Amino acid sequence: MVAATLPARYARWDGPGAPFRVVDADVPREPGPGEVLVAIDLATVCGSDLHTTRGRRSSPVPGVLGHEQVGHVVAAGEGTTVDPGDRVVWSVAASCGHCRRCARGIPQKCTDLLKYGHQPLDPAHPLTGGFATHCLLAPGTAVEVVPDAVPDVVAAPASCATATVAAVLDAAGPVGPGDRVLVTGAGMLGLTATAMAARAGAEVVVSDPHPERRAQAVAFGAAATCDGAPGGVVDVALELSGAAAAVRTCLDRLDVGGTLVLAGSVSPGPAVELDPERVVRGLHTVTGVHNYAPRHLAAAVEFLVGNHDRYPFASLVGGPYALDDIDAAFAAAGRPGAAPRQAVRP
Amino acid sequence: MVAATLPARYARWDGPGAPFRVVDADVPREPGPGEVLVAIDLATVCGSDLHTTRGRRSSPVPGVLGHEQVGHVVAAGEGTTVDPGDRVVWSVAASCGHCRRCARGIPQKCTDLLKYGHQPLDPAHPLTGGFATHCLLAPGTAVEVVPDAVPDVVAAPASCATATVAAVLDAAGPVGPGDRVLVTGAGMLGLTATAMAARAGAEVVVSDPHPERRAQAVAFGAAATCDGAPGGVVDVALELSGAAAAVRTCLDRLDVGGTLVLAGSVSPGPAVELDPERVVRGLHTVTGVHNYAPRHLAAAVEFLVGNHDRYPFASLVGGPYALDDIDAAFAAAGRPGAAPRQAVRP
Repeated sequence: MVAATLPARYARWDGPGAPFRVVDADVPREPGPGEVLVAIDLATVCGSDLHTTRGRRSSPVPGVLGHEQVGHVVAAGEGTTVDPGDRVVWSVAASCGHCRRCARGIPQKCTDLLKYGHQPLDPAHPLTGGFATHCLLAPGTAVEVVPDAVPDVVAAPASCATATVAAVLDAAGPVGPGDRVLVTGAGMLGLTATAMAARAGAEVVVSDPHPERRAQAVAFGAAATCDGAPGGVVDVALELSGAAAAVRTCLDRLDVGGTLVLAGSVSPGPAVELDPERVVRGLHTVTGVHNYAPRHLAAAVEFLVGNHDRYPFASLVGGPYALDDIDAAFAAAGRPGAAPRQAVRP
Repeated sequence: MVAATLPARYARWDGPGAPFRVVDADVPREPGPGEVLVAIDLATVCGSDLHTTRGRRSSPVPGVLGHEQVGHVVAAGEGTTVDPGDRVVWSVAASCGHCRRCARGIPQKCTDLLKYGHQPLDPAHPLTGGFATHCLLAPGTAVEVVPDAVPDVVAAPASCATATVAAVLDAAGPVGPGDRVLVTGAGMLGLTATAMAARAGAEVVVSDPHPERRAQAVAFGAAATCDGAPGGVVDVALELSGAAAAVRTCLDRLDVGGTLVLAGSVSPGPAVELDPERVVRGLHTVTGVHNYAPRHLAAAVEFLVGNHDRYPFASLVGGPYALDDIDAAFAAAGRPGAAPRQAVRP
């Protein structure tokens, strides 16, 4: 007879400055309707996890962090679209599907949003984050099957970095041959955006103050790199650094009909000056991206399936660390010059 | 035998402060390939004409002003889509159709744009503006047939005001029932935008400092009006006043997922502060509209055909004045509290 529960472990986070504690839990083996129980193979430390542990991002305490991971389905509840054994990634959040925002096509801003790795810890239902052996996906979570050919370290960031970049490219409108694209910030998002835009045929210029990141950008398809503002104008600017100076550079470099997508500015920062006449006469568009819709996760997986070995995505991830060594993973992630991601293998 | 030329008259403008001079001309009766010769029935004085005569907008001197008009086709050159006798309106500009911008879907920003009412006067080919008995449409001009049911005073502004507003609504994305729309500025553009958004089913709030304009806004379908900022947030803000304070109000009132379309800021003005984090987390979009594409002229005519008697568009136009009295038309247009348009009937 199979036990009704299954042993699991999760890394409990008790607030900035406190070490993680790995806690044992028994979780029901049979998920409810719309739920999916996943065994996590690998999770990566996202920049926002680091912001959280450093106290720069408000997050419920205690909690289970992590929202970039890949795993295998253990059991799928009624009404789900996956089967036990499927290798999957899932969205950073679950949406209700019926509030005004969900109805308006922005489920990522659902008024009843459940954000993985960002929920208050409920010891009776602790599996809401990536730094754990298992995650119990709630109804309203987008789930995508990932073929085995995509390595764990490349698949895990799909849930956050790659899907966000897919949303950024979507917001930019069709990008293709003949388009001049500026990417500011060559971190995880910027390098992924560079690869996506370059693969679509655009001529991509990447701006980043760090020479080693500029070199990486070339490996991800950049036609040129610069520190600060590029020469000439661009059709599309993708601001992924969060620096106000970069936002200004992007605004300044837009050609007539150009679009600037802002996605890096997720922390309070200085305002930038906008010249309304320039926006009007230039037919400029400035648009913000935060989180993403289910279609963007699908686009992210599709992109990685087709391009995981074309660009050195695997080189962006350090580790892996065992769940018991998660403090070391966060320490490594926070070091200057560190790889954009560190992996935890529960 | 029919003469090869036809007598025409046009109002020559000699720069700010100088009166108009009506000049006789002989124009070829047979237009060249792609050209259309139109006899103008009625033209309206647009705000930008007034800016020009007041020296606030740079325009070639001498010239023939006017770019909002309705007329009947006299003769249509090879390869055009209209026939003699057709009642037509046409775009504010003609595009080359093959430059980079035309190829990118923004013919209104063609690098070889011919703007009606904004060209240097060529006495051998003077018919490039609305304040004349005739206009010779160049290849690359969008032309739309207008049924007789739409009065001249309602049809003439289609070429500029109504089509620009159609572009504004297009830039806003689909607007319909359940959408909360803010319109700032209840002049010709703002009232037209109010009617279009209200007719689409949106709940429209109109902001304007002038009580009489707010009263007009109600007649054009506004659900509410205000002076300054409305209470609550909106899904779409249409800034048609050009005032920096109104741009700020619009930015401030955008709900999550909201879009601000800027179209009023066509003169130099103060910059406004943009908070990148707010744009990102709010999924905000700010987009500029200047001139319009051919599809917007078609949408404008379609809207006026269906709604010209539903809203008091005819009340927005004073006059008409004879071509010889064009100075009086401009004087009337410039008076405080004047109707948004004055008509000239050549």
